[in-house]
Amino acid sequence: MRLAILGCGTVGSEVVRLLHEQSADLAARIGAPLEIAGIAVRRLGRDRGDLPVDPELFTTDAVGLIKRDDVDVVVEVVGGIEPARSWLVDALRAGKSVVTANKALLAEDGAALHDAAADGRADLYYEASVAGAIPLLRPLRESLHGDRITRVTGIVNGTTNFILSAMDATGAGFAEALEEATELGYAEADPTADVEGFDAAAKAAILASLAFHTRVGAADVHREGITEVTAADVASAQAMGCTIKLLCIAARGVDAAGRESVSVRVHPAMIPRSHPLASVGDAYNAVFVEADAAGPLMFYGRGAGGAATASAVLGDIVAVGRNRLAGVRAPSESAYADLAVRPMGEALTRYHVSLDVADKPGVLAAVAGVFARHDVSIATVRQAPAGTEPAGRGVDAVLVIVTHVAPDAALAATVEELRGLDAVRSIASVLRVEGGE
Amino acid sequence: MRLAILGCGTVGSEVVRLLHEQSADLAARIGAPLEIAGIAVRRLGRDRGDLPVDPELFTTDAVGLIKRDDVDVVVEVVGGIEPARSWLVDALRAGKSVVTANKALLAEDGAALHDAAADGRADLYYEASVAGAIPLLRPLRESLHGDRITRVTGIVNGTTNFILSAMDATGAGFAEALEEATELGYAEADPTADVEGFDAAAKAAILASLAFHTRVGAADVHREGITEVTAADVASAQAMGCTIKLLCIAARGVDAAGRESVSVRVHPAMIPRSHPLASVGDAYNAVFVEADAAGPLMFYGRGAGGAATASAVLGDIVAVGRNRLAGVRAPSESAYADLAVRPMGEALTRYHVSLDVADKPGVLAAVAGVFARHDVSIATVRQAPAGTEPAGRGVDAVLVIVTHVAPDAALAATVEELRGLDAVRSIASVLRVEGGE
Repeated sequence: MRLAILGCGTVGSEVVRLLHEQSADLAARIGAPLEIAGIAVRRLGRDRGDLPVDPELFTTDAVGLIKRDDVDVVVEVVGGIEPARSWLVDALRAGKSVVTANKALLAEDGAALHDAAADGRADLYYEASVAGAIPLLRPLRESLHGDRITRVTGIVNGTTNFILSAMDATGAGFAEALEEATELGYAEADPTADVEGFDAAAKAAILASLAFHTRVGAADVHREGITEVTAADVASAQAMGCTIKLLCIAARGVDAAGRESVSVRVHPAMIPRSHPLASVGDAYNAVFVEADAAGPLMFYGRGAGGAATASAVLGDIVAVGRNRLAGVRAPSESAYADLAVRPMGEALTRYHVSLDVADKPGVLAAVAGVFARHDVSIATVRQAPAGTEPAGRGVDAVLVIVTHVAPDAALAATVEELRGLDAVRSIASVLRVEGGE
Repeated sequence: MRLAILGCGTVGSEVVRLLHEQSADLAARIGAPLEIAGIAVRRLGRDRGDLPVDPELFTTDAVGLIKRDDVDVVVEVVGGIEPARSWLVDALRAGKSVVTANKALLAEDGAALHDAAADGRADLYYEASVAGAIPLLRPLRESLHGDRITRVTGIVNGTTNFILSAMDATGAGFAEALEEATELGYAEADPTADVEGFDAAAKAAILASLAFHTRVGAADVHREGITEVTAADVASAQAMGCTIKLLCIAARGVDAAGRESVSVRVHPAMIPRSHPLASVGDAYNAVFVEADAAGPLMFYGRGAGGAATASAVLGDIVAVGRNRLAGVRAPSESAYADLAVRPMGEALTRYHVSLDVADKPGVLAAVAGVFARHDVSIATVRQAPAGTEPAGRGVDAVLVIVTHVAPDAALAATVEELRGLDAVRSIASVLRVEGGE
């Protein structure tokens, strides 16, 4: 079984190291030894430290390496859309199995890969693309396929979880917590992909596709990042017995026309501290899955890092190796359900709204009237005199309202109308609430 | 694809119900419709309520049903060793794939089943045998097989977890908490299999076999139940920031001769409240897996109940169905590592020992001397004046000692020698401590 490895960065070098260290065990598990046919890198001659591999194996010619007759399996740990897509489509069409960690590519154009895999009758495995080391895609793809998954709620981005955990623990603002994350190596120099939710959205698309047997792409995912989460929001959450997490949520439901459909979104949300996801701290990932028969399930572990991601890649390599030796391939992508993706306005959510209001009779009635006009039912109202709210904003009174579940559009319209209300001085915080009801 | 279902109790009837409700989805996922060829029960004519199935399908002739030419897959949800073993061995040898939830049989004589599956070139799936709905065996068997698992620590018995959680929450004693569990339906009329750890030990054997690619049977598992856990133990744990759980632990290590080996055990233990397993309450199950590259992982969900277990059975049915349609079988049991199982005396653990002692000079020195003679290193000592310990035992002083990791035999010998010490009035509590160091 001969492998072409594309990329030799943090993950790629760990893959090479593990292939070397565990070669005897891997051979026993597969039934045949694994060999590295070549490693494609951008530049030769870079110091690869003490990587236990023949330097002759490095090449800058990825295309040539993939085409070689003696390559059975292509392992891609480069990332990005191109040239990765062309490489992998060519490999799959030529009947070579692919193991990839490339979430951006799978979310952007998973169809191209799945189609190429079907054309070439080759395997396409991508466990490492979501939640790093956590065995998650195989359970979704294979263990729960006798059940009906209704909802997936995940913390799938370690950088933002580190930042939000720090804000929760220390009361720091976003900028300060981001700075700490950068210093400690949890955030990249350009943190946009993480803090704006692009990374989580790609993973949400992959999870939703598997959970609901439907093709969902990155463009179908409603995405909000965490850059606007304030220390006051975190304090409000704490006052409610909640914490704020960047969640990816994929939920089954019915659209306005009554057809079954899915809603896929990434945004910060308050969740109760008693929820299993609330205690997922630091840069850890966890995914909470709800299924009709199985009930609630949670998968927890390291979502990033060279070794953790390499563990998932190695698991896929063994699976692909066994399949090839047996002359079979894994079940292909299952997209038979072909559900529509609901627009965000139709997603069912709850809102937590904190308002600075004038402390005079009739204010609550006016505010409640706005919610009623938009058919949004209020679950709880808490009215605090000025100065007792965490931030002590020095206004007349603070109204904290938590709603029942309603369509997101109705909630957004409610908040918009509240903005125009005379008695409302300002809207201090608006956050979605998940994990209750 | 035609199924013979053996057993129609809590799990079996849920399997039948799900097969009916989700028949279209299941057919799409497998690529062929599923049909029930027959359901073997002990007695006909029992009221099966509104089970959506032709009453003609019920039979008391399990052997005849299994032998029928039109049966492709045998689903066993009867439990127990015989006649289940004979049925399944015959089915597998005849090339029929088997899906079973029978942990007792797998732990007692898994080899017979695996060998029969190899003989008949048939599939043997048993996801439902451990931790009910939680997709756990497939990740161990297939996702992490590129990694090296070092330790599995699990809460795999819902009944005992319910009892210990109740003791922790209310301060109740074992008998009282067991009574509550029985009333609520969490404990059976004869709770022996649960509270004495037999159920957990069977699951420990299955987990250890998969994690370490080695055959481990129920007889290899050191087993202690929870019947001797007292309210005072729970209070001691709380005073240490810990909680008590019945843990199944399978750990890699080296034996006295320096050979790699495994230790597999089930016993109550204190774990820090900060450990992910500590917050697994009620009748939930969770399994914490540590692997070299992946790091720590946790799987959480419902460990029992008809629907949850049926979800796992259905997942296996789909996998088996797909394999048969593709004309392939899953990778067989992998037991290549063939590691020895260490005796309990060589297991590395930590002890928490609470002693009632005379309050006079030299007592601590004498006690510490006993630990030293057995080469057991003390991590912390806490000395409390009489009456301040939770139970207020009215003795002179209470010494609470927590050790570093040492062989279990050395710890047991230490406790034995402490018993004979003049200054030691009594040994109030001895508990293992896990999840630290």
